[in-house]
Amino acid sequence: MDIVDSSEAPGPTPVFFVAGGTGISAETLGNLMLAQFPGLHFTRRKIPFITTVEQARTVLAQIDGVTTETVAPLVFSTVSDQQIRQELQRTKAAFIDLFGSHLDTVERVLHVNATHSATALHGVGDTLRYDRRMQAIEFAMEHDDGASLRNLEQADLILVAPSRCGKTPTSMYLALQHGLKVANYPLVPEDFDSDQLPRPVKELGDKCFGLLSTPARLSQVRGERRPGSTYASLAQCSHELRRAEALYRAHRIPSINSAKMSVEEMATVIMQSSRLPDLG
Amino acid sequence: MDIVDSSEAPGPTPVFFVAGGTGISAETLGNLMLAQFPGLHFTRRKIPFITTVEQARTVLAQIDGVTTETVAPLVFSTVSDQQIRQELQRTKAAFIDLFGSHLDTVERVLHVNATHSATALHGVGDTLRYDRRMQAIEFAMEHDDGASLRNLEQADLILVAPSRCGKTPTSMYLALQHGLKVANYPLVPEDFDSDQLPRPVKELGDKCFGLLSTPARLSQVRGERRPGSTYASLAQCSHELRRAEALYRAHRIPSINSAKMSVEEMATVIMQSSRLPDLG
Repeated sequence: MDIVDSSEAPGPTPVFFVAGGTGISAETLGNLMLAQFPGLHFTRRKIPFITTVEQARTVLAQIDGVTTETVAPLVFSTVSDQQIRQELQRTKAAFIDLFGSHLDTVERVLHVNATHSATALHGVGDTLRYDRRMQAIEFAMEHDDGASLRNLEQADLILVAPSRCGKTPTSMYLALQHGLKVANYPLVPEDFDSDQLPRPVKELGDKCFGLLSTPARLSQVRGERRPGSTYASLAQCSHELRRAEALYRAHRIPSINSAKMSVEEMATVIMQSSRLPDLG
Repeated sequence: MDIVDSSEAPGPTPVFFVAGGTGISAETLGNLMLAQFPGLHFTRRKIPFITTVEQARTVLAQIDGVTTETVAPLVFSTVSDQQIRQELQRTKAAFIDLFGSHLDTVERVLHVNATHSATALHGVGDTLRYDRRMQAIEFAMEHDDGASLRNLEQADLILVAPSRCGKTPTSMYLALQHGLKVANYPLVPEDFDSDQLPRPVKELGDKCFGLLSTPARLSQVRGERRPGSTYASLAQCSHELRRAEALYRAHRIPSINSAKMSVEEMATVIMQSSRLPDLG
């Protein structure tokens, strides 16, 4: 019985993400494609930093080692080196070349041959980029939740929101991925006694961006921190969100609802809305 | 003269990154390809969140509006919706479909049809993911630079290193992108008087991962913070790095040199080396 069952219901499909660099693109794009097959199961394995033909041969043996008549793995590759790609393409598994198959098109459009080499990633530009990101992260940490007001006017962006609407992760993401100096400032219940922005950000309204959530989601998140508190109650969350929204509207501060968005999506929308440059 | 010059040396090639989501993959993979053409110049424009055929028509007009006999833009797309893709493919520009062209292969291997729809990204899994990332970020902020020792044993990873070797950005990246609870702990000159790990991490050596740098790079980074100081001197940096390396070796703490690596690369190497799961 067991044998019949297992041949009728094959196991998960092995998926390999192979890359010359970190494999982040291969993984993201591969997973985006796999998400189009919601009923199926996969086992995922990332194999980053493949930079020699010898390493490619080891990878090849590894992939072909799990390939059988009934098990057909998927290989998503962003390897750019031509020789390494040729080696990998000899696999018995399905090889999805996210890079090479499109490079011909780009060459044709640009009338220039690609270097076909592992990209030199570590020039002066990368040191500058690293330094900028590091400074942005330090700025974001210093200015998290209104902890410091020093040099607040140097912020590229100030996120304002009631507690637990996602200020901190969004600030960190924008700093880390886009090199932006992002401060975040909390709106506490006392701030809603007036129709004005809190004093420290009052003159910086054009740098502000508001976050909102839904009462249910906010209550859930606050409840994890302080279960059963007034702070986490649906009534309190609902009140603070209503007042925050009114405040944003009165001061023409753009805002988004973070309840159903990922950090990446929020960051993208905020940058688009505030026309912030990508300094990452 | 000007006219002849401009026809011989055309302006930068317009590049569009079009996506149904944030466009992060389209941008990363597209830029990886453009890096293969080091002599050329590009103007880049990201157009995220294209989810309707109407929006696609607007994008099409925008792209075709800059397409002339001498200007051939490149369009990198990760749009997954079939109707939207068909609309975008009508462009006069070169359309590089990072998604659809490979989906046929995946369908063939899996013997299942793709749903061909914009992926439903916001299920329960995403809320859990968001919460995990948020907790990881808070943990990383609380445990930055040895600021707190509370629940240090709950860390998935403890980065140790002399000041300014990249502990903070690497911790934040691992927390934000991979949902890992990462503490970081500084090695200060006094720690080198002994051959032991600093007391707070002494019993947690198996969670530790060391960062190193080159004396020149470390001196440069420290010099930006405290120009002309002993702290930033080449001799001091060289001494601390040598002692840190000896300490890692004595306690079998794996380590990497951060001087020539991006944050993404460091994170990938550390996760691989320490066999950390991707909880992101």
